[in-house]
Amino acid sequence: MIRCGVIGATGYAGSILVTLLVGHPEVEPVYLASHSYVGKRYSDIYPSMTGHCDLVLQEENLEEASTLCDVLFLALPHTLASQKVTQEILDRTVIIDLGADYRLKDVDVYESWYQCKHASKELMSQAVYGLSELHREAIRNTNLIANPGCYTTCSILTLAPLVGEGLIDPSSIIIDSASGVTGAGRSEKTANLFCEINESYKAYGVTNHRHTVEIEQELSILNRSPLFVQFTPHLVPMNRGILSTCYADLNEGVTEKEVAEAYEKWFGGEEFIRLMGSNLPETRYVHSTNSVAIGWKVDPRTKRVVALGAIDNLVKGAGGQAVQNMNIRFGLEESTGLVKWIANPL
Amino acid sequence: MIRCGVIGATGYAGSILVTLLVGHPEVEPVYLASHSYVGKRYSDIYPSMTGHCDLVLQEENLEEASTLCDVLFLALPHTLASQKVTQEILDRTVIIDLGADYRLKDVDVYESWYQCKHASKELMSQAVYGLSELHREAIRNTNLIANPGCYTTCSILTLAPLVGEGLIDPSSIIIDSASGVTGAGRSEKTANLFCEINESYKAYGVTNHRHTVEIEQELSILNRSPLFVQFTPHLVPMNRGILSTCYADLNEGVTEKEVAEAYEKWFGGEEFIRLMGSNLPETRYVHSTNSVAIGWKVDPRTKRVVALGAIDNLVKGAGGQAVQNMNIRFGLEESTGLVKWIANPL
Amino acid sequence: MIRCGVIGATGYAGSILVTLLVGHPEVEPVYLASHSYVGKRYSDIYPSMTGHCDLVLQEENLEEASTLCDVLFLALPHTLASQKVTQEILDRTVIIDLGADYRLKDVDVYESWYQCKHASKELMSQAVYGLSELHREAIRNTNLIANPGCYTTCSILTLAPLVGEGLIDPSSIIIDSASGVTGAGRSEKTANLFCEINESYKAYGVTNHRHTVEIEQELSILNRSPLFVQFTPHLVPMNRGILSTCYADLNEGVTEKEVAEAYEKWFGGEEFIRLMGSNLPETRYVHSTNSVAIGWKVDPRTKRVVALGAIDNLVKGAGGQAVQNMNIRFGLEESTGLVKWIANPL
Amino acid sequence: MIRCGVIGATGYAGSILVTLLVGHPEVEPVYLASHSYVGKRYSDIYPSMTGHCDLVLQEENLEEASTLCDVLFLALPHTLASQKVTQEILDRTVIIDLGADYRLKDVDVYESWYQCKHASKELMSQAVYGLSELHREAIRNTNLIANPGCYTTCSILTLAPLVGEGLIDPSSIIIDSASGVTGAGRSEKTANLFCEINESYKAYGVTNHRHTVEIEQELSILNRSPLFVQFTPHLVPMNRGILSTCYADLNEGVTEKEVAEAYEKWFGGEEFIRLMGSNLPETRYVHSTNSVAIGWKVDPRTKRVVALGAIDNLVKGAGGQAVQNMNIRFGLEESTGLVKWIANPL
Repeated sequence: MIRCGVIGATGYAGSILVTLLVGHPEVEPVYLASHSYVGKRYSDIYPSMTGHCDLVLQEENLEEASTLCDVLFLALPHTLASQKVTQEILDRTVIIDLGADYRLKDVDVYESWYQCKHASKELMSQAVYGLSELHREAIRNTNLIANPGCYTTCSILTLAPLVGEGLIDPSSIIIDSASGVTGAGRSEKTANLFCEINESYKAYGVTNHRHTVEIEQELSILNRSPLFVQFTPHLVPMNRGILSTCYADLNEGVTEKEVAEAYEKWFGGEEFIRLMGSNLPETRYVHSTNSVAIGWKVDPRTKRVVALGAIDNLVKGAGGQAVQNMNIRFGLEESTGLVKWIANPL
Repeated sequence: MIRCGVIGATGYAGSILVTLLVGHPEVEPVYLASHSYVGKRYSDIYPSMTGHCDLVLQEENLEEASTLCDVLFLALPHTLASQKVTQEILDRTVIIDLGADYRLKDVDVYESWYQCKHASKELMSQAVYGLSELHREAIRNTNLIANPGCYTTCSILTLAPLVGEGLIDPSSIIIDSASGVTGAGRSEKTANLFCEINESYKAYGVTNHRHTVEIEQELSILNRSPLFVQFTPHLVPMNRGILSTCYADLNEGVTEKEVAEAYEKWFGGEEFIRLMGSNLPETRYVHSTNSVAIGWKVDPRTKRVVALGAIDNLVKGAGGQAVQNMNIRFGLEESTGLVKWIANPL
Repeated sequence: MIRCGVIGATGYAGSILVTLLVGHPEVEPVYLASHSYVGKRYSDIYPSMTGHCDLVLQEENLEEASTLCDVLFLALPHTLASQKVTQEILDRTVIIDLGADYRLKDVDVYESWYQCKHASKELMSQAVYGLSELHREAIRNTNLIANPGCYTTCSILTLAPLVGEGLIDPSSIIIDSASGVTGAGRSEKTANLFCEINESYKAYGVTNHRHTVEIEQELSILNRSPLFVQFTPHLVPMNRGILSTCYADLNEGVTEKEVAEAYEKWFGGEEFIRLMGSNLPETRYVHSTNSVAIGWKVDPRTKRVVALGAIDNLVKGAGGQAVQNMNIRFGLEESTGLVKWIANPL
Repeated sequence: MIRCGVIGATGYAGSILVTLLVGHPEVEPVYLASHSYVGKRYSDIYPSMTGHCDLVLQEENLEEASTLCDVLFLALPHTLASQKVTQEILDRTVIIDLGADYRLKDVDVYESWYQCKHASKELMSQAVYGLSELHREAIRNTNLIANPGCYTTCSILTLAPLVGEGLIDPSSIIIDSASGVTGAGRSEKTANLFCEINESYKAYGVTNHRHTVEIEQELSILNRSPLFVQFTPHLVPMNRGILSTCYADLNEGVTEKEVAEAYEKWFGGEEFIRLMGSNLPETRYVHSTNSVAIGWKVDPRTKRVVALGAIDNLVKGAGGQAVQNMNIRFGLEESTGLVKWIANPL
C-alpha cells in the first residue's frame, strides 16, 4: 500500500482528496494536517467519516510528513507550499501540490501576478505541470507535480486540439468561464455567504484573474509561440462544476470536419475525456466525476469556433486529477479509485 | 453474474438504480425498459453512460423481461406493477418493486388511500416490506420485495427504537418531514418547474399523504397494537435528501439514557445507520450514500423526544435500498456496490 | 416629515429597513449607523442606492442619534440595545428595537435563555411587544417598541385564534418552522457559507431556540394561563421566507367550521393577513411583502388541527413590521410604504 | 385613467406586467386574457392578488379587447401576435407586443430565423423597436411598439456607446450572456424541471439563438453599417436576472477615458441606467427593478474592452420596459409605477 498524506485536509479540495484516498484500493492515508482543526479527528469535522477515517489532524509539518508518506498532497494557499518544500523532502517523497506555486515556469510571471516572492525558485526545474492528458510522461518521472488550477484544466483541454493543430488564430482566443462556489474555497468572507451568492450571477477577476497566465503558458507551448488569452471567470449559485465557453477565429478554410478530427486525434482515446461534438456539455454531466466533457460548434456566419468544456472543479479540477497524477506517477491503472460517470448526476 | 433488469429506467429513481447496477461487481444489467424512450440507447438519454451502458430501451414487457433476468426492479407509477406481476413471473424471477402496490398488507387501506382497485391481491401474501434493517430474514425468502417509500424509510427507522422499546406514547407521534425535489419525480408539471420551486418552501399532502399509512403499518407492528401518526411532508428547493423531524411524548420516567440505549440496541451494529446522538443530522451528511443518520434530543421542559433522521431519498429512499435488498436476497455482502460515506458531500 | 434613523443599517434587516424608509412618503432617513462601515456612504455599501440614499454611515451613538431623529430603529445583536437605551433617550425619541432585549416581560426568562444580564430592566415596563395585529393600542402609546422575532411573528399569528378561542389543548402545541438564510444574519461564519447550506436541510436550536419563550409569552397571554410549546426551527437553502407548520390537539367536539370562524373573527379584517383556509400557503406567496398568509386543515383521523403560516422573515418578520409599528405609533395609515402583494413573486 | 389589458397574463412576463399595472397610479387594468385559464379569476391563479386584481380571465380576443382598452400588452408565443393585430385594431388602441413578431425590420430575416411566415408584413413599417433609451421619440409616435427581448435589451445597451462612438472593431463583438430561468417561460417541459436545472450550468442556442439578429439590427444602426455578433446565452440556476459579458477589440489608440466618456455621454442622464465603471455589476444589483447596471474594463494586454451589463430579465427585459414604453407613449413621467432600486435585493 502506498502511504499518503494530505496537508490542508479539511478545505473543500482537501475533503474530496480524503474521500478519494480513503476509497482508493492501493493507498492508505496515514497523515492528515489542517491549520484550523489540529488535534481533532477527521471524523469530528466530517462525521460521515466515522469508522472510515478517524485520523487525528496534525499541525502542518511537511518535514515530518515526508518521513511518513510516499506521496504528499498539498492543498494550501499560495506561497505556503513554496516556503515548505525542500530538495531533501523531494528526495524522500512525491509532492503533488494543488496550489499555484509550482505551476508557472516563468518565476517572474508568478511573482508579478501573485504579488509575492517565490521562496524556492531552485526547485522549479523539477516541477511538472500536472495536466495528466498532456504531460503523462513527465509526470511519471518527477517528484514535484504542480496540479493545475480548475479553470485552467477545463480551458486548456477544451482548446488544446484547436491550438495544437493550428486551426485557429491564436490571438483571438476568448475564454468565458463560470464556476460553482466551491471554487472560492471555504474561508469566512462576506462575499461567500449564502445570501450574497444565491440568486445572483457575477463576473470577477475580469482582465486579471491569475489562471490567465497558466492557460497562456500551456497554450503557448502547444502553439509553439507565445499567445495571450482573454479569460473571464463568473460565479454561479451552485456548489460544483465549471463550464468554459471558448471562442476563436478559425483560420481561413478550416472546416467543421477538421475541427472534429482534431478533437478525435487528440482525445479520442482518453478515458476521462468525453467528446460530444455538437451535443454541448452541461456541468451536471460530469458532476462528481473526474471526466471532462467537450463539445463544439462552428459558426459559418462569423467563421468562429465555439468550444465548450465542462468539469467538476473539485474532482478533475482539483482532487481527482491529483489522484490521477498519483496513479500515473506510481504506475497504477490511471483510473484507479476515480469515477468516470454517473447516469443522472442530480 | 446475476442478470438484472429495470423497468422504468429513465426516471430519477431508475437512473440511480442503473448507475448502481452498472457499477455493481456481481450483477450485469441486461434489460432496461422505459415508457418514454423505447428504442433509444440508455446512453442517448444519459450521455455520460456512453461506453458504460448502451443497452437499447425496451417496451415495458414484464413477461419477457422475467425470462431474461434473475432480478427485476420496477420503478413504475402505482397500479401498474400490480397489473403486470403474476405468479408465473414470480416463479421465474425476483421482483423488487419500488412502487407502492405491494407495500400495504391491508388491501382495503391500499384501495382507499390510493383510490384504485388492486389488480393482484392474491400475491400480497408473498410480498415482504423491504425495509432492509427490519425485515432481513423475510427478504431473504421471498421473490416479491416491496421496496419502501422514501419518507417512510426515513421516518420508520428514526422512530423504530422508540416505539419498539415502548418509550413513547404511540398516540402522540408527529412526523414533520421535508424532501428534495427528486422525490416528486420527473413528470412535466407546472408545479415541478424550476421557478415554481426555487426560493420557496411549502407543505403538501397535509393530513392525507399516502406514506402515512405505510408508516402506520410498520410502527403498529413494532408497537404490537395499531397506532396513528400525524405526517406532514414539505418540499425543499434542493435536488436530494429527506429529513424527518419526529416528535413524541416520552412515557413517564423515561430518561435520555434509555433513549440512547434503545437506538444503540436496535441499530448499533448496522453498517448503513449512523447514530449521532445530540449531533443532529443534516441531509448533506448522507448525500449520495445509502446511509441513514439519526440524532435525537430529549426536552425536559415538555417531556418530549425530538428524533431526527436523514437519508438520500434516491439512494436509501429508493434505488440504494433496492440494491441492498437484492444483495440480501441473493446472499451477497449487504453493502456490495453501495456507498456508505462521502467526507464532504457538496 | 418624520425624521428617522437606523442603527445597524447594513445588515440584512437593516438594509430592508433602509429600503422601506427611503421609499416611505412620510419619513426622511437622516441618520444611519453601522459598526462595520463607519465613514462610508450607504451607497458605497449598496451601490443601487446611489442618488437615493447617500448618507454617511455613523458610529453607533444612540445618544446623539436620539437628538436628530423622531424615531430610531435598532437592528443590533442582543444585549447592545439594552446597554444603550436610557430614559432620557426615550423621552426624546421613539425607539423601535428589532432585537430581543425588550421583548420578554420576565427578565429572569430573558437572562436565563440569553445567558446574560439585562442592562436596563427599569425600562421594561414601558416596552410594548410590537406584534402589530395584537397590540395596536399599546404600540400607539409607548416610546419603546420591541419588534418581535421572525419565527415568533409567524407562529403566534398562526396560532392566536386557536388559542384565543380555546379550541385546542394548550399543552399539545408543536411548531415546526423553516426559514430562509437571511434569518441567520450577515456574519462571517463557516456555517453560513454558500456551500455549507446549498443543497442541504437541517434543524437547529432543537429544544432550546430562544424564540420559544417569546412564543410562549404571547400565547400564554391569549390562553390566560401559562403554556409551553415545542418549537423547532429548520434552515432552508433559500434567501427569504418562513413557514410555520403548527400542530395541536383539538378540544373535544371542535369542528372545522369553528376553526374557520375563529380565524375570520380574529383576522378577517386585517389588511396584512390573508386567510387561505385549506389552500395552504407557500413562502413565495408573501415574498417581499409585509403580509402573513395562513391556512389550516383539520385531521379527522387524529383530531388535530394543522395550521400553517407564511411570512417574509425580513419584511413582516423584521423591517416591514417595524415600519408598520412606526405607522401605528405616529398615526399614519398603517400600510403606508409597505407592500401587500406581488402577483407572482419569483 | 388609462384603460389597459394584457393578453397572456398568467405567464411569467404577464404576471410581472399585471403586478406593475395594478400598482400603477395612472392606469386601470380592465381586461386580462389567458390561453390556459379562461373563466378563472386572476386571483384564483395568483392568490396574493385577492382583493387587488380579481378580473376574470378572458379568451384571447384581440378584436374585442381593443374596443375596451387604450393600451394592450401582448405576451404571446411568436407568430400569434402577427396573426391577430390588424390596422383596424391599431387605429383604436396602442399595442405593446412583448413577443418577437414586430421587432425585426427585415421580414426575411424574421422568417428565416423564426422558421415561419409573417402574417402581417404590411404593419411592419409602423412598428417601433421599443428600446426606451434609444427610441423615445419614435415610441411616442406609434401605436405599435415592439418591446425588445431580454438578452437584447441588456446587450444592446451595454454595447451602444462603444459602437455608437466608433471605439471598437464592429466585427469583433462577442456577447456571452447568462440568464435566470424565468427567461425560459412557464411551459411544462422536462428541461425546465427543477432537478434538471438546479446545480448545473449550460449554454444553449449556441451560434443560432434568435436574439442574435435583434442585437445585430440595432447595433448595425448605431454602427451605420451592418455588423455581425457572436452571441451565446447560458442558463443559470436562479429565477431572475441577465448578465451580458461583452468583448470587443478596441480601435487603435482608444483610451480607458474615452470609453468612460462614451458611456457618460450616452447614458449619464438616464434614470434607469446606472454606470458603475470598473465596479462590475452583479444581477442582484438590479433584481426586481427596471434598472440596467453597466460596468467595463479595458485590458491593456489584449487591447480589448470587456463591458458587462445586468438587468432583471422580467422587468427591464420584459414587463418593466413595456410599462416604461407605455409611460413614454402616453406622455406620463417615464418612471411612473416602476422601481429603480432596492438596497439589498436578496
